[in-house]
Amino acid sequence: MGNADNVYPDTNVERAHRVAIPPPQPFLKSFTASMKETFFPDDPLRQFKNQPPSRKLILGLQYVLPILEWAPRYSLQFLKADLIAGITIASLAIPQGISYAKLANLPPILGLYSSFVPPLVYAMMGSSRDLAVGTVAVASLLTASMLGNTVNANENPTLYLHLAFTATFVAGVLQASLGVLRLGFIVDFLSHATIVGFMAGAATVVCLQQLKGILGLEHFTHGTDLISVMRSVFTQTHKWRWESAVLGCCFLFYLLLARYFSKKRSNLFWISAMAPLTSVIFGSLLVYLTHAENHGVQVIGLLKKGVNPLSITHLAFGSPYISTAIKTGIVTGVIALAEGIAVGRSFAMFKNYHIDGNKEMIAFGMMNIAGSCTSCYLTTGPFSRSAVNFNAGCKTAMSNIVMAFAVMITLLFLTPLFHYTPLVVLSSIIIAAMLGLIDYEAAIHLWHVDKFDFMVCMGAYVGVVFGSVEIGLVVAVGLSLLRVLLFVARPRTMVLGNIPDSVIYRSVDQYPNANNVPGILILEMNAPIYFANSSYLRERISRWIDEEEDRVKSSGETSLQYVVLDMGAVGNIDTSGISMFEELKKGTERRGLKLVLANPGGEVMKKLNKSKFIDSLGQEWIYLTVGEAVGACNFMLHTSKPKRVAADSEPGSDNV
Amino acid sequence: MGNADNVYPDTNVERAHRVAIPPPQPFLKSFTASMKETFFPDDPLRQFKNQPPSRKLILGLQYVLPILEWAPRYSLQFLKADLIAGITIASLAIPQGISYAKLANLPPILGLYSSFVPPLVYAMMGSSRDLAVGTVAVASLLTASMLGNTVNANENPTLYLHLAFTATFVAGVLQASLGVLRLGFIVDFLSHATIVGFMAGAATVVCLQQLKGILGLEHFTHGTDLISVMRSVFTQTHKWRWESAVLGCCFLFYLLLARYFSKKRSNLFWISAMAPLTSVIFGSLLVYLTHAENHGVQVIGLLKKGVNPLSITHLAFGSPYISTAIKTGIVTGVIALAEGIAVGRSFAMFKNYHIDGNKEMIAFGMMNIAGSCTSCYLTTGPFSRSAVNFNAGCKTAMSNIVMAFAVMITLLFLTPLFHYTPLVVLSSIIIAAMLGLIDYEAAIHLWHVDKFDFMVCMGAYVGVVFGSVEIGLVVAVGLSLLRVLLFVARPRTMVLGNIPDSVIYRSVDQYPNANNVPGILILEMNAPIYFANSSYLRERISRWIDEEEDRVKSSGETSLQYVVLDMGAVGNIDTSGISMFEELKKGTERRGLKLVLANPGGEVMKKLNKSKFIDSLGQEWIYLTVGEAVGACNFMLHTSKPKRVAADSEPGSDNV
Repeated sequence: MGNADNVYPDTNVERAHRVAIPPPQPFLKSFTASMKETFFPDDPLRQFKNQPPSRKLILGLQYVLPILEWAPRYSLQFLKADLIAGITIASLAIPQGISYAKLANLPPILGLYSSFVPPLVYAMMGSSRDLAVGTVAVASLLTASMLGNTVNANENPTLYLHLAFTATFVAGVLQASLGVLRLGFIVDFLSHATIVGFMAGAATVVCLQQLKGILGLEHFTHGTDLISVMRSVFTQTHKWRWESAVLGCCFLFYLLLARYFSKKRSNLFWISAMAPLTSVIFGSLLVYLTHAENHGVQVIGLLKKGVNPLSITHLAFGSPYISTAIKTGIVTGVIALAEGIAVGRSFAMFKNYHIDGNKEMIAFGMMNIAGSCTSCYLTTGPFSRSAVNFNAGCKTAMSNIVMAFAVMITLLFLTPLFHYTPLVVLSSIIIAAMLGLIDYEAAIHLWHVDKFDFMVCMGAYVGVVFGSVEIGLVVAVGLSLLRVLLFVARPRTMVLGNIPDSVIYRSVDQYPNANNVPGILILEMNAPIYFANSSYLRERISRWIDEEEDRVKSSGETSLQYVVLDMGAVGNIDTSGISMFEELKKGTERRGLKLVLANPGGEVMKKLNKSKFIDSLGQEWIYLTVGEAVGACNFMLHTSKPKRVAADSEPGSDNV
Repeated sequence: MGNADNVYPDTNVERAHRVAIPPPQPFLKSFTASMKETFFPDDPLRQFKNQPPSRKLILGLQYVLPILEWAPRYSLQFLKADLIAGITIASLAIPQGISYAKLANLPPILGLYSSFVPPLVYAMMGSSRDLAVGTVAVASLLTASMLGNTVNANENPTLYLHLAFTATFVAGVLQASLGVLRLGFIVDFLSHATIVGFMAGAATVVCLQQLKGILGLEHFTHGTDLISVMRSVFTQTHKWRWESAVLGCCFLFYLLLARYFSKKRSNLFWISAMAPLTSVIFGSLLVYLTHAENHGVQVIGLLKKGVNPLSITHLAFGSPYISTAIKTGIVTGVIALAEGIAVGRSFAMFKNYHIDGNKEMIAFGMMNIAGSCTSCYLTTGPFSRSAVNFNAGCKTAMSNIVMAFAVMITLLFLTPLFHYTPLVVLSSIIIAAMLGLIDYEAAIHLWHVDKFDFMVCMGAYVGVVFGSVEIGLVVAVGLSLLRVLLFVARPRTMVLGNIPDSVIYRSVDQYPNANNVPGILILEMNAPIYFANSSYLRERISRWIDEEEDRVKSSGETSLQYVVLDMGAVGNIDTSGISMFEELKKGTERRGLKLVLANPGGEVMKKLNKSKFIDSLGQEWIYLTVGEAVGACNFMLHTSKPKRVAADSEPGSDNV
């Protein structure tokens, strides 16, 4: 601010407050600072500061493998709790795993494999204490629909299986890289509203797919949209199997009843958690005793004994369908990540501990990479299973290890028991789980609070149900981004008025009692001034001036002489924005008006200064608060001198 | 605000100012208002209000055809000025038209056709008084490179020509629809920085292409990138023609000299304007007299006499290459629009009249639709020609009509004169025009004022020169959008301090003399709180609190008790943002801190109210200004009562 002490050559009055230009910083320094703020907002290296090297090593190891942090403090008390929780979630994991693998058009045994290796990896690397690892319905369905578009799972099961492993590998690599590259914020672009709509849509689609199992149909559409499914169902009415349908409805009723009781009293959570396993046992017994498999009730059939075979050699990177696998991996990887991170965060909130999003991503990624090499497909932290884990009183990630061992025992000894499990029971289990994902109350809340979020939510729902899962996702993310862009492209400009008995100036829309100041138009802009809005703002401001002049003319008030722009909410400006100011200044000068700025922020002042706009406007026309600006303008209006003098010098008497 | 008069049940002190929730509005009303603000920010129907029907009809006709507005007031004085300007731009239009048509791989005569019909259409519908219509180099090059990718202009000239007409038609329809649908703001997404880089890149590429003409090469690469061109040039060194090169350099020197003089004294503008035509005349004479066409100097050859033949039947909508034509039309249409609108706006600024962007788009669109039916290719308002028009003293769009008639006379009678015009002269004309488009001073200015804009500019330049025109455009627009998204995804949070001798609170980074308030952490956020930044803000705010607590602990000051958030710059909030506040409130409460909000805006208050957050936080913890909030917190800190009392009640003594 060059000539500091006398910027008002024609007056001897000094101004109370001065708008500062932040001290200049070397480019490299400000660049590193803004990079750090973008990629390391949580300052992950903070705990390493001022520590001896040995401590740094331990902290580093604990950073990569959080198990090293909690294992030494692990107590018998904890083990007891984790044992109960682990067995509870295993009883849920086994039938759900088989069901979701069927949903993904993969061999049912993969569902069990996927509940063995990945939970072990997560237990070592994950930082959530409540997350229970497993496969999820939405990612399973996505795998089926995206891979199914190019490769038919029935005609070419081996290729399909290998592509599924490859997609899982790609998803894992993507997840781990997002974490390592600190790009975790990409997941944030899936807003809450998107996820509500998307989940409900996916749940609807998954339920629709279960009509195949419930009605005992052998041929079914490969499409996931409502119209294809309905056509497929109602063109085959003659093939519906009533035995299957009756069985399905009974089990569904039982499962929903169990959930109803669990919801009513939270200490009955185990009813709901055990219901799938008891359904499976009961259904299998029923089929075994009645030989219903010969009467149109389809069963799982033979499951191979033994733990996960290696599949690292099956990763199909040479396949001509590799691009499909990559695409599937990216989409499912991001979706799975979003669910897992959201679940981890919610439970961490409850129990008041901190979760590092980027670290979690690395854990998810490593778990899927390891999974893809050991015959697992995509896993994450499903909400339903984690909620059961939480309710069962888990203390640490040890419950995942317990679950993994329970699944291992099943794999080694108990697989023959699932031979007679009817598919219709699996369908019922899936439907029951999915109905819980349709959160219509959240949608109603969105409608009440924010119409645009509701639109995003509905866009995702309708897109998923009538188009495809990908379309729904693109629509929802597109709408969300459009909102951000529209916010910047069409910022709100507001006329400010004086709050009575004060020197505070606020929007006259929000404060109907705020008064206009005769001869002065005060405008506030609510967004950074960027290329995307600079033409709009120029035109909108000139329209405000037109309207104000019309109003003044018709009412016979003091004619307009000053336009005060409150820049407090203008976070940044680019070169297009600066040009806009230059044009605005010319425009107002031609009309005989004086442009006055109030409270520009640091970034804005820096750029206005570098582009010499401050010199061209005159340093003395930039005020710290709207109150000071209006005070000065008023003083000049009433003394009728075209001179610039300072505001009433009472310190602190001014306001924005 | 429900229980208005006694929201502080435990005190009898009334607060000075209250944060208002804007009066509720029916959904439909606020929806229409925001639609109107988005699509009709200029309120185009304003002039129609309160007018009799006959007047409305006239105004409506004048709106569609601005010529009806200015023609009745047209005077002989104006005609004289427009006549001079029109003839001047015609002398530039004829050689430039031929050159650019060659650049687009189209028959040279199309360049003349395109300076006949489109200017007439624009003269009737356009609202700029200074714009001179014609073809432009960048769009010509784009046509050549995009259409050339699928159809070879030399092997299949008819198909290529028909696709060019179709692309022009598509561009016209797109431009007109953008105008009718009020989507003109899409053009704003091409920022000033993008255009500087893009234009310079395109100019470089166009100059490189001229090496073919200058060196007299017969075979040349179809690629437009630097590497392909350099390879093409240096693998054919034995085929370089020195006659051609010498001629080219001489003319280039002459043209640049002419421009140098014109730039030095603006009343010598005609030297530069006439130079291309004199080059053509002189070059043709030279070839005619020396028979240089037999010694390796290529000439234009035969040009058909007569005005534009109809081409409406040549629009190739049934062609298998229609998708290429559509893509070309969209890209060239948007680029041409951006240039035309920018040029129109700049000159309107100079002469202080208003241009309606959407109306201009309709004019451009109609002119290109009409052009595509009458053997013209894409036209817009080129900067160079419009600048000459402006300097020549044009008064209205009549100068375009004069130019069109001059071109018509050329088409009818003078085409044989161009038979001997050497191609190398055309190359020189193009290079001379292009060198003027490389605005390195603007790039330096960008570097000084805004590093990110410089990056966008360089991205566009490098993308165009080393990749292709489309790549450059995608890179630049992508970077620009990334900036907007980053602004929202990583808003700045700032710690505020007290400006000495006042109750004003400002960022301590910008105002190094601002003082911290013991026991109170004051933070300001600088962007709307959306899904894209809500997790970031939650983590960043909790890090600010951590850091402040560490600092306080080490320095032994009053321990932290209040966190005041200045919401003045938070323009909007969505449901993810509201969840963030709920989590933040829980988090601060667990740490024994109290969350206080200052100055939330209307939109934010509305949504916080609807989501019941205000009730959960307590209405009494929301203040109109930071000053009032800090005053109240300070009072409570010093009286050490866990009770809420109002700030010092002196009205107006508080500040944000």
